[in-house]
Amino acid sequence: MPKLSAYDKELPYSYALGIFPATECLKNAKGRCMRLLVSSDSAESEGVMNLRSAAEAAGIRCEEADRLLEKISRKENCHAAMVYRKEEGQLSRDGDHLVLHHPGDMGNLGTILRTALGFGYRNVAIIRPAADSDDPRAVRASMGAAFSLAICHYDTFEDYRAAFPEHGVYPFMLTGSTPLDEAAAARKPKCALVMGNEATGLPEDFSKLGTPVRIPHSGAVDCLNLAIAAGIGMYAFAGKRQGEGK
Amino acid sequence: MPKLSAYDKELPYSYALGIFPATECLKNAKGRCMRLLVSSDSAESEGVMNLRSAAEAAGIRCEEADRLLEKISRKENCHAAMVYRKEEGQLSRDGDHLVLHHPGDMGNLGTILRTALGFGYRNVAIIRPAADSDDPRAVRASMGAAFSLAICHYDTFEDYRAAFPEHGVYPFMLTGSTPLDEAAAARKPKCALVMGNEATGLPEDFSKLGTPVRIPHSGAVDCLNLAIAAGIGMYAFAGKRQGEGK
Repeated sequence: MPKLSAYDKELPYSYALGIFPATECLKNAKGRCMRLLVSSDSAESEGVMNLRSAAEAAGIRCEEADRLLEKISRKENCHAAMVYRKEEGQLSRDGDHLVLHHPGDMGNLGTILRTALGFGYRNVAIIRPAADSDDPRAVRASMGAAFSLAICHYDTFEDYRAAFPEHGVYPFMLTGSTPLDEAAAARKPKCALVMGNEATGLPEDFSKLGTPVRIPHSGAVDCLNLAIAAGIGMYAFAGKRQGEGK
Repeated sequence: MPKLSAYDKELPYSYALGIFPATECLKNAKGRCMRLLVSSDSAESEGVMNLRSAAEAAGIRCEEADRLLEKISRKENCHAAMVYRKEEGQLSRDGDHLVLHHPGDMGNLGTILRTALGFGYRNVAIIRPAADSDDPRAVRASMGAAFSLAICHYDTFEDYRAAFPEHGVYPFMLTGSTPLDEAAAARKPKCALVMGNEATGLPEDFSKLGTPVRIPHSGAVDCLNLAIAAGIGMYAFAGKRQGEGK
């Protein structure tokens, strides 16, 4: 293993910072865990002790690394981090997809991934250019949800579409022709919910694809926050899945 | 007017930082605007010029204040700020209320206020202790939505309840007995949606009040992000308002 550095998107590994995200990484992506880093003053933390035992039981090396932790956490007080191998996910042909077109903000991206897991969207396509879903800040904002999802990147929406032609496409747009409730009530068995960039939304030509969806809201705000809009969209579509209980 | 200082919650005034929030402040809370601050290098910015003209037309003094802007924006690059008088709002007896019980995070609070305005919740009760809705970071995260809302503070939920006994109470809780869809479909004409703190949610005894609501989600996440949960809740209840079109 090479000498570890502060995170950079070109590196083949990243860091799950904090006890909770590191634990999620170990639990849900054990095969990708490379090493557990702990701070020297964490010996009495119950959370760190539990994480350490679990890592050792899984055969993952554990080491004290105060300086490295300080560097990778940008001086936030961080007592544990899992070093993990980055890996491109494989989307399932079954079930709903969430498609994020040029997401720009790391924190928003993490929040959206956590919400996706909460509503059973385990397959997430990200269309580049995009915020890095393996950036420690995104992983942290996702509370480790990223490790329970298949996340797959595409250079264009057409590339994604060519791989999954059977999914009903639902672009979320301010000018969408169909209100969310109505679109969700008439949803296809397999749906791709498509969300645009925080600042610019989806390009206008997405209005020609599938069923463009509008979340009705008052004209008093220009638009909803992206993570909020994605949460509302996923909630509404998940509630109308076939055979889904409450 | 006293010498202006960096924001502190004890001050009777605050700052709407940035062209968009400052413009919203002028448009929707003109009577509270005290002074417009602009940076000396902003003379050619169209946004600042428009804001300046509008402020002058409204009789609000405008001045260049680079150092003060730097201080109040914590060195973010900020070209304009409206100094405004803080004022406790008056909640309307009609229409829905959003009740935030001990919200802890300024950014979340701002995002929630913006979403509230988007879904027509113009009356927001905040139960103390709480993040300061007049903190420049909250105002900025709200994109100035705070200036279009009546925001009123209470020391306890009981104080709020005594003032508005007619509203149907809907506490949002992980253990809520009624799924959101069902609660929204049977909603009272006037509703108070009650949301807890980010980390701790609502105290358990809220389960005895009104109709406790659960947002159905998978067990793969502990809970949803507060701003996401609030957004989903407001969306669902707003969609079932009497006579509300889409």
